[in-house]
Amino acid sequence: MRDRHLLGIRDLSRDYIEQCLETAKGFKDVLKRDIKKVPALRGKTVINLFFEPSTRTKTSFEITEKRLSMDVLNFSVPSSSVVKGESLYDTIKTIEAYGVDFIVIRHSSSGVPKFVADNIDASVINAGDGINEHPTQALLDAFSILEKKGTLDGLNIAIIGDIYHSRVAKSNIYLLSKFNNSIRLIGPPTLIPDIKNDNIEIFNHMDKGLKDADVIMMLRIQLERQGRSFFPSIQEYFKFWGLDKRRLGCAKEDAIVMHPGPMNRGVEISSDVADSKQSIILEQVTNGLAARMAVLYLLAGARE
Amino acid sequence: MRDRHLLGIRDLSRDYIEQCLETAKGFKDVLKRDIKKVPALRGKTVINLFFEPSTRTKTSFEITEKRLSMDVLNFSVPSSSVVKGESLYDTIKTIEAYGVDFIVIRHSSSGVPKFVADNIDASVINAGDGINEHPTQALLDAFSILEKKGTLDGLNIAIIGDIYHSRVAKSNIYLLSKFNNSIRLIGPPTLIPDIKNDNIEIFNHMDKGLKDADVIMMLRIQLERQGRSFFPSIQEYFKFWGLDKRRLGCAKEDAIVMHPGPMNRGVEISSDVADSKQSIILEQVTNGLAARMAVLYLLAGARE
Amino acid sequence: MRDRHLLGIRDLSRDYIEQCLETAKGFKDVLKRDIKKVPALRGKTVINLFFEPSTRTKTSFEITEKRLSMDVLNFSVPSSSVVKGESLYDTIKTIEAYGVDFIVIRHSSSGVPKFVADNIDASVINAGDGINEHPTQALLDAFSILEKKGTLDGLNIAIIGDIYHSRVAKSNIYLLSKFNNSIRLIGPPTLIPDIKNDNIEIFNHMDKGLKDADVIMMLRIQLERQGRSFFPSIQEYFKFWGLDKRRLGCAKEDAIVMHPGPMNRGVEISSDVADSKQSIILEQVTNGLAARMAVLYLLAGARE
Repeated sequence: MRDRHLLGIRDLSRDYIEQCLETAKGFKDVLKRDIKKVPALRGKTVINLFFEPSTRTKTSFEITEKRLSMDVLNFSVPSSSVVKGESLYDTIKTIEAYGVDFIVIRHSSSGVPKFVADNIDASVINAGDGINEHPTQALLDAFSILEKKGTLDGLNIAIIGDIYHSRVAKSNIYLLSKFNNSIRLIGPPTLIPDIKNDNIEIFNHMDKGLKDADVIMMLRIQLERQGRSFFPSIQEYFKFWGLDKRRLGCAKEDAIVMHPGPMNRGVEISSDVADSKQSIILEQVTNGLAARMAVLYLLAGARE
Repeated sequence: MRDRHLLGIRDLSRDYIEQCLETAKGFKDVLKRDIKKVPALRGKTVINLFFEPSTRTKTSFEITEKRLSMDVLNFSVPSSSVVKGESLYDTIKTIEAYGVDFIVIRHSSSGVPKFVADNIDASVINAGDGINEHPTQALLDAFSILEKKGTLDGLNIAIIGDIYHSRVAKSNIYLLSKFNNSIRLIGPPTLIPDIKNDNIEIFNHMDKGLKDADVIMMLRIQLERQGRSFFPSIQEYFKFWGLDKRRLGCAKEDAIVMHPGPMNRGVEISSDVADSKQSIILEQVTNGLAARMAVLYLLAGARE
Repeated sequence: MRDRHLLGIRDLSRDYIEQCLETAKGFKDVLKRDIKKVPALRGKTVINLFFEPSTRTKTSFEITEKRLSMDVLNFSVPSSSVVKGESLYDTIKTIEAYGVDFIVIRHSSSGVPKFVADNIDASVINAGDGINEHPTQALLDAFSILEKKGTLDGLNIAIIGDIYHSRVAKSNIYLLSKFNNSIRLIGPPTLIPDIKNDNIEIFNHMDKGLKDADVIMMLRIQLERQGRSFFPSIQEYFKFWGLDKRRLGCAKEDAIVMHPGPMNRGVEISSDVADSKQSIILEQVTNGLAARMAVLYLLAGARE
């Protein structure tokens, strides 16, 4: 029996992840058809509950859900009853009473999806919680790596940027550590979290960290956080931690460049790299649909 | 022949209400199935026209509509052409020209749904207008009482709070007065409206009003209205008109506690009462879907 | 082979326009049925990308798309990643990666739909760009004229108001000039653009311009633009350029009155004219659905 929820990558088995990626592969084939829709989850209802602004992840989930023929409800903060001061607990119990099958939730506080899962009969999918996890992003990233490299083992993977605040980085580190990879965390010392395991190495110099990399995962710099001054300036940031053509040259010749989007061109990544042949950033977007279709499909199976 | 619109409870016959509740019972069975969707209104279009912020009622209607396989359009104030200063009349005539089948409307002014119904070919459902009526809430409340008590007659029903401003209370009073019940209105004298009939008694002391009650309907205190000072403070309010365990003891042992939501815990109701076995607050949410499915279904029949 | 996009009327052939109108006629019949929905584009996905506030056009497209059984995503400015500072180019490439079939786009800058079409695999429909074009409005207007007058040739057509800023006027002028009509542009000299061709005549006096008109197209005065003072006051405007009963009398007895909505009653049009038998303003709304169904249907055909 499998869990009804997808709250994070940390506690998943390698087996389960591999099943997810295998299922996603089938859905990717569906996405290449003229009619990209399947009746798999017809009659099932999902609520997208976004307590943080989001376009990409929300749109990706909404398309995914419609491709699976689900009934979709969107529920964003400003229009939600949060305005009227209802407690999160009461909001959740109300949604449960509607009899929905799935909740996709994003929240600025770490742990909220877990709290929701503990209090509801529906299946909960974490679409990003605080600085904790963003599991579907890690699954789509793994799917993208597997597709390009043919394996998820034995790779040199560089993750670059504000790792401390990045739930994308956390979920990717958890996932890639379940396979036999060498993971290099690269970024300003103030933005490297205290995650340690045998697969992880920390670099404070980008050229060194990129040496012989097979996979380069850039992170988005959250400019809206700049008030808190974790680094001096955008110019300064790009100089030390931005990915340009020269630095890309430190990695293997066939290294792939990834970014969860939306990109800040000229901040963490130069335009020529973003648009280069080694960039698979747009394929990640497509793979996001396949990976999320797989997650919803497998969770629906676990509910039966 | 039945009316095409549901504007209020006041003018409905006891027969029609009973037919509604009977129909809702059938839909409640549908809601217990794995696939909670029926093709009853496939191809029909509904516009949810909310001129007042709302989450609960709007979400409930949207789920209801999708469960009936309708095509759903949402139209909220900030994105509506109200911004461009178009008259309500022109907005309505435009919607009529789209050929939609149903309009679900909420408005802060009493009487707007009636005005809309007078000017449009579609069926209009009042989802709450000013301090006038909220008929689907009264129907779901009656359905909930009937389900728990096995009858809608001969009950002692206490309604507590700001009855004057509450369209929920008004619709409930109209409905329950069509059956043989004893209705007790309990609240600060400034917040009791001038509604009189043989079934109604007014209490300014909560313990007395609750004595031998079968049904306790709490109303939401609209904290956003507090600027106007109908009562001194929240603490003061809870002390006199809040429902706690001790006061619940004044009612019959098997009395049920109802609330239209969202609750202000600690303001009009204590948490232990809200979460007690006597509380049917979450079942009201589920019953809201069944009652609204029934209303849409019956109105669709009346259009043919 | 036909173009995959509808960016404007200017470059369309008379043939193509006639095919559109013929197709729209078939869809208008569908709209008269009890079930107004057809499975024509089932499984196709459309994103409505509105960078400018809009109710009418957006709602019209959304209903149209649902009537064609498409999967619909709505994407408005405030919730879009524009907030996070992503470039329009990256937004478009992301949408392309989702594999959507259609983008309906409105933007305050002229030329944006063209830019999108140049960079995406999906079919792009211009839903209004700056002061450039609004092609589906011109098609629905032509459809309405043809329906009422039985022909699109040999008519005296008066277009009145702020023609300079009106994309509706521009698209209508382009379309009607492809047929053999006499087009009169009427308005304050500051608001008449420098469009010239053999069919166009300019009038600075309304009574003269309306003489023997078969068709009167009123334009919406954008009161929100009044800060820039293209005319002294609303009263003044109505006095010189507003359509009232007396002025309507200058036109042919069977002249039809059109307006793209939303109307400013008492500003550009008097209420008795707006509600008169000669007004076809509400029929334009219905015809908007038929015309847009035709556009989507034909573009889908061009994609195969």
